[in-house]
Amino acid sequence: MPPGGGGARLALGLEYDGRPFSGWQTQPDRSAVQDGVEHALAAFSGQRVATICAGRTDAGVHATGQVVHADVAVERPLQGWVRGVNRFLPATIAVRWARVVPDTFHARYSAIARRYDYWLYDDPVRSPLATGRSGWVTRRLDVDAMQLAGRLLLGRHDFSAFRAAECQAASPVRDLFELGVVRRGAYVVVHLLANAYLQHMVRNIVGCLVYVGIGRRAPGWLAEVLAARDRRLAAPTFAAAGLYLSDVRYPAAFGLPGADPLRVAP
Amino acid sequence: MPPGGGGARLALGLEYDGRPFSGWQTQPDRSAVQDGVEHALAAFSGQRVATICAGRTDAGVHATGQVVHADVAVERPLQGWVRGVNRFLPATIAVRWARVVPDTFHARYSAIARRYDYWLYDDPVRSPLATGRSGWVTRRLDVDAMQLAGRLLLGRHDFSAFRAAECQAASPVRDLFELGVVRRGAYVVVHLLANAYLQHMVRNIVGCLVYVGIGRRAPGWLAEVLAARDRRLAAPTFAAAGLYLSDVRYPAAFGLPGADPLRVAP
Repeated sequence: MPPGGGGARLALGLEYDGRPFSGWQTQPDRSAVQDGVEHALAAFSGQRVATICAGRTDAGVHATGQVVHADVAVERPLQGWVRGVNRFLPATIAVRWARVVPDTFHARYSAIARRYDYWLYDDPVRSPLATGRSGWVTRRLDVDAMQLAGRLLLGRHDFSAFRAAECQAASPVRDLFELGVVRRGAYVVVHLLANAYLQHMVRNIVGCLVYVGIGRRAPGWLAEVLAARDRRLAAPTFAAAGLYLSDVRYPAAFGLPGADPLRVAP
Repeated sequence: MPPGGGGARLALGLEYDGRPFSGWQTQPDRSAVQDGVEHALAAFSGQRVATICAGRTDAGVHATGQVVHADVAVERPLQGWVRGVNRFLPATIAVRWARVVPDTFHARYSAIARRYDYWLYDDPVRSPLATGRSGWVTRRLDVDAMQLAGRLLLGRHDFSAFRAAECQAASPVRDLFELGVVRRGAYVVVHLLANAYLQHMVRNIVGCLVYVGIGRRAPGWLAEVLAARDRRLAAPTFAAAGLYLSDVRYPAAFGLPGADPLRVAP
């Protein structure tokens, strides 16, 4: 909280098209989503505002349900924060909602679960309207086989097999609550709900599910890869383009709006 | 047909993201979809190739089911035309299929019906992922009222009320076979199937349906506007961003692939 009173901790729901950005997090000489959001918050409030996000998305990854918190020194109506900040944001980023939260709220540490959706376009011919918005597989995917394989990952596991070499996490153990695979028109959508993720974990899991979907591996192979805890056994990391951070869940007491993960996509 | 034999008339199915283009048709000093397609056909075949399209889409209008024909002097396998031409096209345009058709086939004059889909995003807050891909209405749309209004336009009518001032068509009479309005997630999709369209006809009809959807006009107003045949009574032309040419239908004897209009969108 800023000193002097009159301020508040705000939680903001964000949507962005990840294509023009180097990822969420500010980096020297890169164009990060965080830079755009903090610049707009400063322009609207007249003060420097720092943000903490729920999920640090990589370059090219989209979000429909990103959540950040920020301590602001000025009081404005909540709709003012939405409309006012949006006026200073590029067309590729928008604030969807704003809520005042207690000082105990932390966008990253208060989160109970995060949902990612991965959109796969499976067709021999590329789709201009899917470019940058979905992963692409030239062969038809077997959704049932992928769903069967995905179930083998549910629960609390050491997910080292799906972890990027540069991952900074202290522990490789995560709780995977849901993994669903459904066809939607020309797309196959994989969704995951977990307490948290290792770096590139979703894209590495999707890479393995695609191997199963095209028949290169049997569904049971996922259990072997998981048990071996060896990244070299898994499939290559899948493209960032199809990945959407679509929901972050917090204890109900914080009263934040629920997300509609398949609201926008791909 | 080119002289000398060995050539063929080809029909090609095209998808494109209309955002970077000045529309389908070649114009001096503009970037048209037609330029991109003809450039790629020439690069692949080594010869100048002219195309005729089924529907001349405006600037910013997308297509998932555009059809063109072209007379080509070289014989290649059909999959070669798809894959080969796609290598020379920008990421925003793709050939989806190719077929050899008789000389009697004409992409424009042989077409029996054309389908357009219009995607409307109805939400108080703008959506970065919908920008350039859908029209935007800040108020929630009443789908039932819009459907009721749309039915009043079905059949053979003089559609002068929905015709752009600069429209070149000889007659303002068109046959509207279908007009459907459905909600899909955060979007309301309006689809029209007609033998052909006047300039801006779909976008002008959508503008009027939106007036009904937000309660500014009653559904029956559409019948008044249609009967008056006066463009000044209708609502403003709606944005190009939400419009998709999604299907062109030909007599079955030509054996062209069917379209899946809602395959990709928005």
